[in-house]
Amino acid sequence: MSEAGFDGFPHVLGEWLKGKGPDSDIVVSTRVRFARNVRGFPFTLKATPQQRADVLALCEEALHKVHLQRSIVTLELDKLAEVKRDVLVERHLISRELAGGDGPRGVAYGRGEMLSIMINEEDHLRLQWIKSGFDADRAYQALCKVDRALEKVLPFAVSDRYGYLTACPTNVGTGMRISVMLHLPALTMKEHIDKVFKAAKHMNHAVRGLYGEGTRAFGDMYQVSNQATLGRSEVQILESVKAIIPRILETERQMRGQLYAEDRSFLEDRVLRSLAVLRNARRLNVQEMMSHLSMLRLGIDMGLVSDVPMRTVNEMFILGQPSHLQERQGRPMNPTERDTARADMVRAMLAAHSN
Amino acid sequence: MSEAGFDGFPHVLGEWLKGKGPDSDIVVSTRVRFARNVRGFPFTLKATPQQRADVLALCEEALHKVHLQRSIVTLELDKLAEVKRDVLVERHLISRELAGGDGPRGVAYGRGEMLSIMINEEDHLRLQWIKSGFDADRAYQALCKVDRALEKVLPFAVSDRYGYLTACPTNVGTGMRISVMLHLPALTMKEHIDKVFKAAKHMNHAVRGLYGEGTRAFGDMYQVSNQATLGRSEVQILESVKAIIPRILETERQMRGQLYAEDRSFLEDRVLRSLAVLRNARRLNVQEMMSHLSMLRLGIDMGLVSDVPMRTVNEMFILGQPSHLQERQGRPMNPTERDTARADMVRAMLAAHSN
Repeated sequence: MSEAGFDGFPHVLGEWLKGKGPDSDIVVSTRVRFARNVRGFPFTLKATPQQRADVLALCEEALHKVHLQRSIVTLELDKLAEVKRDVLVERHLISRELAGGDGPRGVAYGRGEMLSIMINEEDHLRLQWIKSGFDADRAYQALCKVDRALEKVLPFAVSDRYGYLTACPTNVGTGMRISVMLHLPALTMKEHIDKVFKAAKHMNHAVRGLYGEGTRAFGDMYQVSNQATLGRSEVQILESVKAIIPRILETERQMRGQLYAEDRSFLEDRVLRSLAVLRNARRLNVQEMMSHLSMLRLGIDMGLVSDVPMRTVNEMFILGQPSHLQERQGRPMNPTERDTARADMVRAMLAAHSN
Repeated sequence: MSEAGFDGFPHVLGEWLKGKGPDSDIVVSTRVRFARNVRGFPFTLKATPQQRADVLALCEEALHKVHLQRSIVTLELDKLAEVKRDVLVERHLISRELAGGDGPRGVAYGRGEMLSIMINEEDHLRLQWIKSGFDADRAYQALCKVDRALEKVLPFAVSDRYGYLTACPTNVGTGMRISVMLHLPALTMKEHIDKVFKAAKHMNHAVRGLYGEGTRAFGDMYQVSNQATLGRSEVQILESVKAIIPRILETERQMRGQLYAEDRSFLEDRVLRSLAVLRNARRLNVQEMMSHLSMLRLGIDMGLVSDVPMRTVNEMFILGQPSHLQERQGRPMNPTERDTARADMVRAMLAAHSN
């Protein structure tokens, strides 16, 4: 498969979903993001449509100059159908804010969808690099290269005193955020997840459920991110994330061990039922799919399921979302049609790995 | 397998569970019961222990005289362990009242467990014959033969004016009750079951959920029985049951047709998930087992499942109950152990019919 379809639209899933890399039993991915703004233009929200168009053109030109455009796809989002913008959101390539915004704005992405550059989001530029597993250093290094190359051809708004200037004060300084996507089923089942939230907050990091609303995280997927950036160096941010994540991993592994030791058959029951439902359901809503995928993911890690690759599970989390299903089908679908299409897709993906 | 184990305890399941006979897509079984009392003795509740012992001895002797004892097993219940008495209840061979009673009392059963004779229940004798499917005439005829043979050697309490005398006035006259066990998943899903209850009551019949408490019938299993017997002939009772049951069957079939026509994939989803859970769960409580068995039974009838015999489903309803599981295991088990043993048994029984 090529990286992009005939219309420049991605039809292959991110390299970061491959389920490899350090601690990939728990960590799905590590994302590093830099916020940058082009000198001489107001921040996006204050910019006129013409100014936004100018920023978009300047950024595209810069990408071209640094030869990034050879290997990446650039999409102007106001020319893209809503469902395709939503696919990019579900794929973690753009934010929901950029998808739902208006006026001249775009995204450039490539390198197996590890690299993504949003243009005219809250900041003029949001660069991100996603690696599979817990790999903050390499994601950071890869993103630095892109950042430095761009900086040579595009004047960024920088203050000698504060560092990079950004639309929101919480990003001023390095403009850097590290977000780690974690699968924490045992902490969730053992109802210890609130403790993780509190401990992370105490260490100046935020934890949120990746899917779902409120405190209920569908699929037991969570994201841990550093908070304030001002007054802290990039290395300090890296170090703080590298300090907190291993502690969460340790607790999750401890809870998994406890679950297994206390009641192995309870765990087996949950895991094997989930796999059975995924293999046989004719209708699956997204919440139910995610909760069964979570149990399947846990079962793979604990050796209870051996014939389903982690990559397939990670991909189903993305491909089973509403806009992906509709894009694939080429038409809008009502909830029942989506639930049917989702179940069909899941069965087909698992049938490729049937025992 | 022999009909009875070395201790005279039944190890093979009733012929009436075979899932054949008229209307066996919906009707599990038809049971005809006669209440009889031995002349010259007070009703069981008023009888002294000695009188009960005498009645028991008289009945055993009578059974012997009519050569019934050659083919049937007689058990004196006060000498039987509680779990074995409960097995007989789960198997529909004796009532919960007889199992939980005290003093001299017994049961004789045989002919593939179609025939059962309780001694010293509310009445001295409760004779029953169960047939697979909706087969009131043949169950009635078979039971009449036993009744007439016994009457020749045992004097029953009869009044010229009222007919057979019984402990409870609702049984006076013929002492006959017909109970039809029905599987009504579509009426339940469509929430029309209350209408059936009302219509049956209006026609002098009672409907109750066979398993579970209150109005919730686990496994969507219901029992329809005639009510008053006084002033009605046996033929009239037979005719009234034969008038009401086909109306219930028609409505259930209509609802199944509607479910299928309106939303075939919803039905497929329910059925195939249930089969998947039954085939894969490592723990199943009795309520959940019954609700999945109900969907499986429906799926077999509607042609959605072809590799599981109806007899297997009917048997699991009985074998999966707590006392059967414990009797099989030879020891008392806590709820978790039972749920595990139940799931193991269900998987094994279904594996024998795996596609």
